[in-house]
Amino acid sequence: MEEIEPINVRKDMKVSELVEEMGGAGFGAEKISLASEIMALMFKDKECKVFFGVAGAMVPAGMKNVIIDILDEVDVFVTTGANLTHDLIESLGEKHYKGDENMDDSELNKKRFDRIYNVLMSNNVYEKLEDFFEKHFNELKESESIKEFLFKIGEILSKQGGKGILVKCYEKKIPLFCPGIADSGIGLMMWGRIVGGKGKTKVNVFEDMNDIIDIAWTSKKNGVIYIGGGLPKNFIQQSMQFSKGADYGIQITTDRAESGGSSGAPLREGISWGKMKSKGKFVDVSCDATIALPLIYASIL
Amino acid sequence: MEEIEPINVRKDMKVSELVEEMGGAGFGAEKISLASEIMALMFKDKECKVFFGVAGAMVPAGMKNVIIDILDEVDVFVTTGANLTHDLIESLGEKHYKGDENMDDSELNKKRFDRIYNVLMSNNVYEKLEDFFEKHFNELKESESIKEFLFKIGEILSKQGGKGILVKCYEKKIPLFCPGIADSGIGLMMWGRIVGGKGKTKVNVFEDMNDIIDIAWTSKKNGVIYIGGGLPKNFIQQSMQFSKGADYGIQITTDRAESGGSSGAPLREGISWGKMKSKGKFVDVSCDATIALPLIYASIL
Amino acid sequence: MEEIEPINVRKDMKVSELVEEMGGAGFGAEKISLASEIMALMFKDKECKVFFGVAGAMVPAGMKNVIIDILDEVDVFVTTGANLTHDLIESLGEKHYKGDENMDDSELNKKRFDRIYNVLMSNNVYEKLEDFFEKHFNELKESESIKEFLFKIGEILSKQGGKGILVKCYEKKIPLFCPGIADSGIGLMMWGRIVGGKGKTKVNVFEDMNDIIDIAWTSKKNGVIYIGGGLPKNFIQQSMQFSKGADYGIQITTDRAESGGSSGAPLREGISWGKMKSKGKFVDVSCDATIALPLIYASIL
Amino acid sequence: MEEIEPINVRKDMKVSELVEEMGGAGFGAEKISLASEIMALMFKDKECKVFFGVAGAMVPAGMKNVIIDILDEVDVFVTTGANLTHDLIESLGEKHYKGDENMDDSELNKKRFDRIYNVLMSNNVYEKLEDFFEKHFNELKESESIKEFLFKIGEILSKQGGKGILVKCYEKKIPLFCPGIADSGIGLMMWGRIVGGKGKTKVNVFEDMNDIIDIAWTSKKNGVIYIGGGLPKNFIQQSMQFSKGADYGIQITTDRAESGGSSGAPLREGISWGKMKSKGKFVDVSCDATIALPLIYASIL
Repeated sequence: MEEIEPINVRKDMKVSELVEEMGGAGFGAEKISLASEIMALMFKDKECKVFFGVAGAMVPAGMKNVIIDILDEVDVFVTTGANLTHDLIESLGEKHYKGDENMDDSELNKKRFDRIYNVLMSNNVYEKLEDFFEKHFNELKESESIKEFLFKIGEILSKQGGKGILVKCYEKKIPLFCPGIADSGIGLMMWGRIVGGKGKTKVNVFEDMNDIIDIAWTSKKNGVIYIGGGLPKNFIQQSMQFSKGADYGIQITTDRAESGGSSGAPLREGISWGKMKSKGKFVDVSCDATIALPLIYASIL
Repeated sequence: MEEIEPINVRKDMKVSELVEEMGGAGFGAEKISLASEIMALMFKDKECKVFFGVAGAMVPAGMKNVIIDILDEVDVFVTTGANLTHDLIESLGEKHYKGDENMDDSELNKKRFDRIYNVLMSNNVYEKLEDFFEKHFNELKESESIKEFLFKIGEILSKQGGKGILVKCYEKKIPLFCPGIADSGIGLMMWGRIVGGKGKTKVNVFEDMNDIIDIAWTSKKNGVIYIGGGLPKNFIQQSMQFSKGADYGIQITTDRAESGGSSGAPLREGISWGKMKSKGKFVDVSCDATIALPLIYASIL
Repeated sequence: MEEIEPINVRKDMKVSELVEEMGGAGFGAEKISLASEIMALMFKDKECKVFFGVAGAMVPAGMKNVIIDILDEVDVFVTTGANLTHDLIESLGEKHYKGDENMDDSELNKKRFDRIYNVLMSNNVYEKLEDFFEKHFNELKESESIKEFLFKIGEILSKQGGKGILVKCYEKKIPLFCPGIADSGIGLMMWGRIVGGKGKTKVNVFEDMNDIIDIAWTSKKNGVIYIGGGLPKNFIQQSMQFSKGADYGIQITTDRAESGGSSGAPLREGISWGKMKSKGKFVDVSCDATIALPLIYASIL
Repeated sequence: MEEIEPINVRKDMKVSELVEEMGGAGFGAEKISLASEIMALMFKDKECKVFFGVAGAMVPAGMKNVIIDILDEVDVFVTTGANLTHDLIESLGEKHYKGDENMDDSELNKKRFDRIYNVLMSNNVYEKLEDFFEKHFNELKESESIKEFLFKIGEILSKQGGKGILVKCYEKKIPLFCPGIADSGIGLMMWGRIVGGKGKTKVNVFEDMNDIIDIAWTSKKNGVIYIGGGLPKNFIQQSMQFSKGADYGIQITTDRAESGGSSGAPLREGISWGKMKSKGKFVDVSCDATIALPLIYASIL
């Protein structure tokens, strides 16, 4: 049996050293270290396709650059419409602001700030969004899949010198999926043009499924990284059913298993479904992703 | 100030009496009672349109009939593809089974059972699903919106004498939205036919948005009930931005506010966005929905 | 395999009927039903000694009467000093009040109200507490164990016609343990007299251990009910190590297993320690106790 | 308003740099950074007495050395009997081992290993504990307060060349409180000797209260650090009522506010009680302490 080795910290310690120390501990610390090991293995394994699913308002919380960096190692990216909307907003030059979870929401409403826990966004962003979609609707509406639609947004931003997740996925041709795109500010912008009489879109609901399943099906090995569960996790999980099960897995969420939802379900549950290999290397990290993800990722650089 | 009145329980007590007693208490008990009051008000208010969003694997967990009953009071229903897939499975005569969260998932995989926390589903269901979609694909693929597509499934099931959520929504013409339908067993079945060469569908990603926003926009008052957060909550929340804000709100989830996601965000946060009226009657119930929802709903009958 | 039977609710349904319906479901609903069955078995089993541990601010939250009722079935009661202090406060005629978790704490401080989530207590209670201990210190200080000390408080209150948990335990001679009594308002009141020069007490830290361990050791069977974890759970758990392991167990808490503390540890973990029998009947209910406990207890009356 | 600055990570980054980057973010990451700032301020403030409360099984989880290091900055230490028992066990040369939360507890019981989430302890430790208390009972039983009793254990260990928390507190004369000592392996060992006829102890329940309250009362400023809540938090909180309220506060726990217990109550709630200054600098970190505490502490070295 392996002994618990108490964590030692010291001045000027590197993140990688702290995470290594955590590897000697138990509880969540050990899981951070395991996640670090599995992430390194997954990224180094040439036969492995990496599926990265990100729910939660990660962009407003300041996780954009960490996500962009990780995308260099990723073969499939799935996220929420919210994250992409906030990414677009920042690509258009707007910002998110620091707030406090105890702020008076009626006051914020009067001042036209939207609150996301301890982060704020000004309603002014909507003007830039409106302009963007007003100008580019005709190009966008011809897309036949959500992926194509999102790549088109990325392309437009890229040409304008923008940076961000949409731009990165477009430029690096990282397959980007967002099945819930209608449920987002981007969806609202498209709706606004459609009801405004600018025409219908061709974006088809089931069009992207073949792409993601095909990658899962044809790769030798698969690795999954789930931030926050939600639709991104589930969409990747369902494609894993068409693989031999993921070989590597990292899940970071504070959702609980007990309420039975997919977001809080431990990765082990996926073995029954064939989504995870029973001999796969995987770990559930029960932690705020804004803490755990930078810590884990910085430790493997 | 109002005094805390300790809860008194007694033999043969009715659910409505227990919930009334909870109204004298603090912590979560008081919130159950508040939710009961708000649900009763919301359902009685003739001017109020009720938006009901259900995430989580509520159908496998045995919540189908409670949801079906509540649908009688509901003007808009939004749920996950998973719930609708499990509803379809049960409408086709298949069942879910009791399991245990500590079961050996490798064993379950060999026996071809999929685990959802302490609930199991046999892989045999997929044969019936395959048959259903094989037979009805041609009818289904013509749908132009997800709502139309789901109503079509409900119609087919209804004609076969089926019961369930899809049938109920179809028969009662309750607007039913599921923006993430591609992320579900139903999505997989459609994909299977499409890649099998049976043709493309016409289901458009943005087509339903007008319907839900139109209801929110034109109604005098709106009430929202969120089970488990996720995409159903968010999709209703975004339509509320086009109303004057919801007048009534009930949220039941065990997700936390601290991790910043929409699912765990208290309803109060919606005031800043204009999704909830600052003078609205609303309550966040931090509880497993399989406990809280039957308790609250039974108390107002 | 047992099929999931969806929960059916109806008008004028009894609590016992709702909990029975929950027995057909999965997730937390099934656990409520299991807890109801186990509680009924535990209370009916003449060979079984029932150990009831209550942490959390259950008395301020209005759970006093439910606890008092359950005490009729209980052989050992362990709770926090906080619960006993709040019980004493109510026995002295003071009240707790309804508040809101979003209240301004600085304002409350100015108005001299102490907040416990959504419950308030006036600082005026301290005057009555001071009077009580000033008057009875001499009787109390002679106690040699915490149990004797608490029984003495119960006796004084009983003679004054008081009601409550302390009175009930005294009158029914239910062994009452509170190892953390110094960590409470009662502790502060004793300290106030001691530093005021009224003499020292004889209350010995280790004196009660023999009593609780003796009951666990000599009984044929043991049942445990844990509300909220904390010191009450742990104190009972450690006495179970001297039994053959508990035969019955119910745990109600929202604390998580992942952070490794005793409060959130599932009962199953106790099997490794010999605190729970591997063939024992036990269930972990992940729920706010102010919701779950009245629901479960009302269902078995 | 302050803009959110996305976190940037890089190779060979120091922990202090990562935490600084987190300061630009929102959600939990920002709270880690705030905790780091507050901890640095608290430790540098010469007028401030630091109260450190540690619940949860932190020693088995490998947090012993982090706690020992932090003790250099601490004026009052409060912990559970469990942490001190596990510290004593390690001081006597025994170890904790790595396990897994999904292990078979019946098997572990047969192999005589006790499980604490993903950490194991061999039952062999009890022999060394028995020997220790058999040998030193006579010295220990004369202690009149729990602090004196614990210092005596620290002294014995120190003379034997032992290391650990008990030794550190004894050697550095850091006031060490543990009101729930009877609820622990150390308590059991004392009980074993008492029932074995080796005599009674003099350890008095209320004896330590004066010491801790006196420090809170007489210091110019107070700072509090709570790991995991429980009795250690509450015991410090009650002493803060006799100060002008804490000037600095850091709380690390995954317990929730909603269930109303002291462990999950945000520090803000303490303002109503006078335990926290309304203008104090404080932060609630919702995170596994084995992750957050090493991260925060390493960042200020």
